[in-house]
Amino acid sequence: MNATPSSPVGLHRVLTPAGVLPQAAQTLDTSPTLWPDEVKIAVERLNLDAASFRQLWNKHEGDGAAVRAEVLEIVKTRGKMQNPVTGSGGMLVGVVDEVGPDSSLPVKAGDRVTTLVSLSLTPLVITDALQNWDGTSEQVPCEGYAILFGRTIAATVPDDLPADLAMAVMDVAGAPALTGRVVQQYVDKGRPPTVAVIGGAGKSGSLSLAQARASGARKTVGIVPVQHEADLLLDVRLADEVTIADARDPVALSEAVAAALGAPADITVVCVDVPGCEHGAILSTAADGGTVIFFSMATSFTAAALGAEGLAADTTMLIGNGYTPGHAELSFNLLRNQAGVRELFERRLAHEKGGQ
Amino acid sequence: MNATPSSPVGLHRVLTPAGVLPQAAQTLDTSPTLWPDEVKIAVERLNLDAASFRQLWNKHEGDGAAVRAEVLEIVKTRGKMQNPVTGSGGMLVGVVDEVGPDSSLPVKAGDRVTTLVSLSLTPLVITDALQNWDGTSEQVPCEGYAILFGRTIAATVPDDLPADLAMAVMDVAGAPALTGRVVQQYVDKGRPPTVAVIGGAGKSGSLSLAQARASGARKTVGIVPVQHEADLLLDVRLADEVTIADARDPVALSEAVAAALGAPADITVVCVDVPGCEHGAILSTAADGGTVIFFSMATSFTAAALGAEGLAADTTMLIGNGYTPGHAELSFNLLRNQAGVRELFERRLAHEKGGQ
Repeated sequence: MNATPSSPVGLHRVLTPAGVLPQAAQTLDTSPTLWPDEVKIAVERLNLDAASFRQLWNKHEGDGAAVRAEVLEIVKTRGKMQNPVTGSGGMLVGVVDEVGPDSSLPVKAGDRVTTLVSLSLTPLVITDALQNWDGTSEQVPCEGYAILFGRTIAATVPDDLPADLAMAVMDVAGAPALTGRVVQQYVDKGRPPTVAVIGGAGKSGSLSLAQARASGARKTVGIVPVQHEADLLLDVRLADEVTIADARDPVALSEAVAAALGAPADITVVCVDVPGCEHGAILSTAADGGTVIFFSMATSFTAAALGAEGLAADTTMLIGNGYTPGHAELSFNLLRNQAGVRELFERRLAHEKGGQ
Repeated sequence: MNATPSSPVGLHRVLTPAGVLPQAAQTLDTSPTLWPDEVKIAVERLNLDAASFRQLWNKHEGDGAAVRAEVLEIVKTRGKMQNPVTGSGGMLVGVVDEVGPDSSLPVKAGDRVTTLVSLSLTPLVITDALQNWDGTSEQVPCEGYAILFGRTIAATVPDDLPADLAMAVMDVAGAPALTGRVVQQYVDKGRPPTVAVIGGAGKSGSLSLAQARASGARKTVGIVPVQHEADLLLDVRLADEVTIADARDPVALSEAVAAALGAPADITVVCVDVPGCEHGAILSTAADGGTVIFFSMATSFTAAALGAEGLAADTTMLIGNGYTPGHAELSFNLLRNQAGVRELFERRLAHEKGGQ
């Protein structure tokens, strides 16, 4: 055990620059010796954030070996998996190896858990050179260890769900929880809202569609970029309407949403991991009291803030917070109780395993 | 008059890349020939966005001539004033020169107006080489013309307020309006909130403090970086408490806020134009139902989203929208009715004229 005091948010593991939180740090201390309130996880698998994986994939033009080499280099030099361009990470699944005596996390040695915080702030050491990963999928089989701080949250993987499915859901659990909360706020005011989900056939998008409906949305539309995504979303029946549009084209996107819903959406949820969707999302949303929830890590703060102003849009714009109390259980229940959600996730995972 | 149809949001003025809104465009068409719904303004003065000016100032190490040369080069090549690093612009004051026959803006030739949208989307031509500006202040005396689109909003400068004062207020009018709205939401639930404003002695910060109090905040604190800003804010009595802290140091900032308010703030408003304040703002805010409003153009979306998740903070995070209905009149009234606001703005303008 270390003698110096630890911080519940992990300040004691920050090497450079001094004084920032682990997420903002350039490098973290990955020492395997635990502070009293920490937990050590034997890592089994990483799930890279979609925006991060896409950036690496595009940068290396689909060369899986080069993607793998860069991930290894990032983790080795920074002590955490944080894409230097997107700033994002992902999450992991593993088995609890050691629990510090002062830990308040409800886990014990041997539990299989997923982290509910980003890899971008989690001390991580990879010991198998990622030899079982070909660099062509966000799901990364991995041996090594990770450290959880006193205030780091983790969820035990349910016995009734496969680990890869649970991890895929946990990575995006904040989206349906916050979407459901915002839908509920409209319902509570006696105005069940219309909801547009940009990227509706993706993981966070499909969960958000399912929860929007469960929370009382009046009508939902899923926007997707291509026909095979439209077919997938139609098959699983999670949206009232499914429309194809390019989210980076503000006019095309807003016209597609208005055509499907009869008017701009009361709530627009942005779940696509490509840059340049801010203006289309704002233009797709009611300019007199609508809400845009940005979950994409590719969102530009400036583009959103100045875009709404330039459009004279009185639109509430939320930064998608990855944490909402109870979000893990809420998402597991969507997976258990909505056949369409489970079918879509299983199809997406099978597709990922087959390469991008 | 041009024969091709115009778009109320200015799509017809976008040269590259095709299909995006003017704010996202690389270059705009600055042709002086109006489309029928447009308005032409004879520009008198630009007010550069604080984040943009600071970036230019630091890049050129305080060399005003170099700052001026870069602003001229940006406007010449892009057809608008948009800082390529910060993405932000500022706004302008001028006199209405020509009103297209189909314009719906409530202005007529000869009116002195301020734009309520960002320069980052406003077609602009500078004709005097900025010869009356020394490059050392955000306020830029300027001759030339600008184009307003059908949906661009502008406010007539009140007769009872000096133009530079009105413009300085208009540049940040979105901040007090949204702050007041959020405070009101807490009051409506029977929980008058505590409010921390990071950068409380600045323009958007001081207006936000004044409006928070006017809207029923239970207690307010202004956080400033240095003693002379603390003295200024104490003098004008706009905050219940004034504390000095470095907003980029999450632990120091959150401890300062908690000490002043007795607990983390219900609402934290971020008005400082330096990067790296996201985590401190989140840590300074109630983790069970607090709200952070980010007005700084230096805000990183990713740092905010992943920071809240990493801290397991159930905090609502709002992207500061520069537009709220009635925000111009609200801010002018703060200037008219609160002696402290006017005193602070006049002192800041005098200081700016004296160089940074």
